[in-house]
Amino acid sequence: MHITTRIIPQSQPSIGIIGGGQLGKMIAQEAKRMSLKVHILDPDPECPASSLADDLIVADFRNQTAIRNLSDLVDVLTYEIELADSDVLIDLSRAKKAIHPAPETLKIIQNKYRQKVFLQEKNLPVPNFALVEDIDGSTNNAVLKHFPLVLKACENSYDGRGNRLIYEKEEITNVASEKSFGKWMVEEIIPFRKELSVMVARNESGQVSSFPVAENKHSDSILDTTLVPARISKCTERMARDIAERTVDVLKGSGIFCVEMFLAENEKILINEIAPRPHNSGHYSIEGCSISQFEQHIRAILNLPLPKPQLMSPTVMVNILGPKEFEGEYYLDGLNELLTIDGLKLHLYGKRISKPRRKLGHVTITAASISDAIDRSKKAKSNLRIMNKI
Amino acid sequence: MHITTRIIPQSQPSIGIIGGGQLGKMIAQEAKRMSLKVHILDPDPECPASSLADDLIVADFRNQTAIRNLSDLVDVLTYEIELADSDVLIDLSRAKKAIHPAPETLKIIQNKYRQKVFLQEKNLPVPNFALVEDIDGSTNNAVLKHFPLVLKACENSYDGRGNRLIYEKEEITNVASEKSFGKWMVEEIIPFRKELSVMVARNESGQVSSFPVAENKHSDSILDTTLVPARISKCTERMARDIAERTVDVLKGSGIFCVEMFLAENEKILINEIAPRPHNSGHYSIEGCSISQFEQHIRAILNLPLPKPQLMSPTVMVNILGPKEFEGEYYLDGLNELLTIDGLKLHLYGKRISKPRRKLGHVTITAASISDAIDRSKKAKSNLRIMNKI
Repeated sequence: MHITTRIIPQSQPSIGIIGGGQLGKMIAQEAKRMSLKVHILDPDPECPASSLADDLIVADFRNQTAIRNLSDLVDVLTYEIELADSDVLIDLSRAKKAIHPAPETLKIIQNKYRQKVFLQEKNLPVPNFALVEDIDGSTNNAVLKHFPLVLKACENSYDGRGNRLIYEKEEITNVASEKSFGKWMVEEIIPFRKELSVMVARNESGQVSSFPVAENKHSDSILDTTLVPARISKCTERMARDIAERTVDVLKGSGIFCVEMFLAENEKILINEIAPRPHNSGHYSIEGCSISQFEQHIRAILNLPLPKPQLMSPTVMVNILGPKEFEGEYYLDGLNELLTIDGLKLHLYGKRISKPRRKLGHVTITAASISDAIDRSKKAKSNLRIMNKI
Repeated sequence: MHITTRIIPQSQPSIGIIGGGQLGKMIAQEAKRMSLKVHILDPDPECPASSLADDLIVADFRNQTAIRNLSDLVDVLTYEIELADSDVLIDLSRAKKAIHPAPETLKIIQNKYRQKVFLQEKNLPVPNFALVEDIDGSTNNAVLKHFPLVLKACENSYDGRGNRLIYEKEEITNVASEKSFGKWMVEEIIPFRKELSVMVARNESGQVSSFPVAENKHSDSILDTTLVPARISKCTERMARDIAERTVDVLKGSGIFCVEMFLAENEKILINEIAPRPHNSGHYSIEGCSISQFEQHIRAILNLPLPKPQLMSPTVMVNILGPKEFEGEYYLDGLNELLTIDGLKLHLYGKRISKPRRKLGHVTITAASISDAIDRSKKAKSNLRIMNKI
């Protein structure tokens, strides 16, 4: 008898995840260790999390009926994708379905302008910013003091999509007419020494717990490398963690959040972005910490205790991105050399198609020192190549 | 559209595992991180690994047709269960299917007498032993020098099944007449200071790599706790690792092996048992080492490089066994208290029914020191209770 269906004993606690990409996959991985059931909703039947889902609902993220069906099947609902229809989620939460983080939180965060206004009102440090439509003929806006500025779409922009550099005030009106992105905002560019991020979890009991501070390097607006511990002073570390915890404190809802920050030239810390979900810059925690961001997220949404994550060893994560040269099926070259490297864990998300700069996986290296880990990560990058399978 | 089947793109490398218990589940867990496909064969459609399998063949382990079908579907076949029909596996290996470890190796190990003879011939240290039918009227056998002895079934005995303590030579004939266990052997009992084990992997290129030495405590012949690093001298550690590596060297085949040893009162190390698979005493490696026994097993059977596993921090593993009081469905009590413990990872295998002493899961604790880890493990044991769900 050959079976490819799953049997799901209804007595198990179960988690529903809107979004079956690599974040959903890694949440599912931790859930499975603890024998929790996982239901995934995603439009792609071959999405990364499909190989771990007990149950896969193939539907678009804006399919209200499908999302309601999912919420009926599970004990708690969460989402990895910020494009989830926040109105649908708000409906569900009014119907008293457990959804984390709270849809009201998602609504604030999804709009970058709304997000910055919210943080500023709570006295949290953000770069100067303004809504494009609020910029009048005068030059009073503090944000216009230094060019270039970054012009951002208020909604639906991530990994650099929708960001433009603006060198003159006149350019603003030209670019902002791209109606497909809705409203626009401008923000001052912070000359930063480092980009930092901290994962922070909060559960319904109000317990808040933050992870160590990560140092991130981006390449063309996509995360390339994460180093933990960040190479900063102890004081800066405490400050970054404190700002991150305060940020999550003021947002409603449970789950894990990523607070991305700039460490400015003048040592000031400014909040850059917030994501109400596990984050690329937190993947290092799977091997590097006493608890991973994914398990912490699960614990937070189930209102379980949130221990304080300890960094177990210096850790470096390097993203594996689709090369710019092709789009299509691929294979990995240099695997044998890559796998000789000590302390290396290879994560492949199982995406069938490579596209330029698509996140296909990552490599995490733990070592006795951060410089060892960095050296090995360079070796890993030089060994591993994504090749077109023609 | 609601899908509960998996789509398996045939281009992915795939692993077949005979046995879908917790070992198969944990192998599958590591395989999934690297986007490998996993096909499982097990008679139980709800076995622990079913929740991670891309494909589940429900069949008995002695079903030759089903095992051949499995081997046709995958690139490499391995097995977690020692009851696999070694004759079937030998057939398959002659048909040039890749099976690891080699069925010839399994045949040696499956029979405890044959195993001990093999090791002794290779000058590896074992306790005195003899086949019951070889024990004659005289008292010449070295093994009969000190009573009590342990009487073991040569085949199909694990976790203490089939073991008896013998206080007088006359008892031997009485007990050995239980024909269901086949042949019997007797072995001297080693007054040991500690029970140790070392996981050792070998790939087809002949590379051998051992894990740190674990210290194990058993309760009623079932593993209760594993502590790493073992509390032994550096010299004893080197000796144990050396004996374990030499043991795996002389066995044919690739994969990971567990070499269980006694540290005798006189500081001698003697081999107790060998298992040609990942082992309960190696679960600590998931969190405690730079690579887990499960990933090392996968690398070994795919002939990938085998790095030397580093112990990242002191680690203690505690088994979660079904209580003696009932057999039936269960739930966990004390979870909230348990999950307040720092550095704790909960593994639940997803077995629906608890039986007395059945392995339902384990808890692994990493800490700054072994004594910290031990303290927390005691707290974990006192917090967690398996309750009958009536």
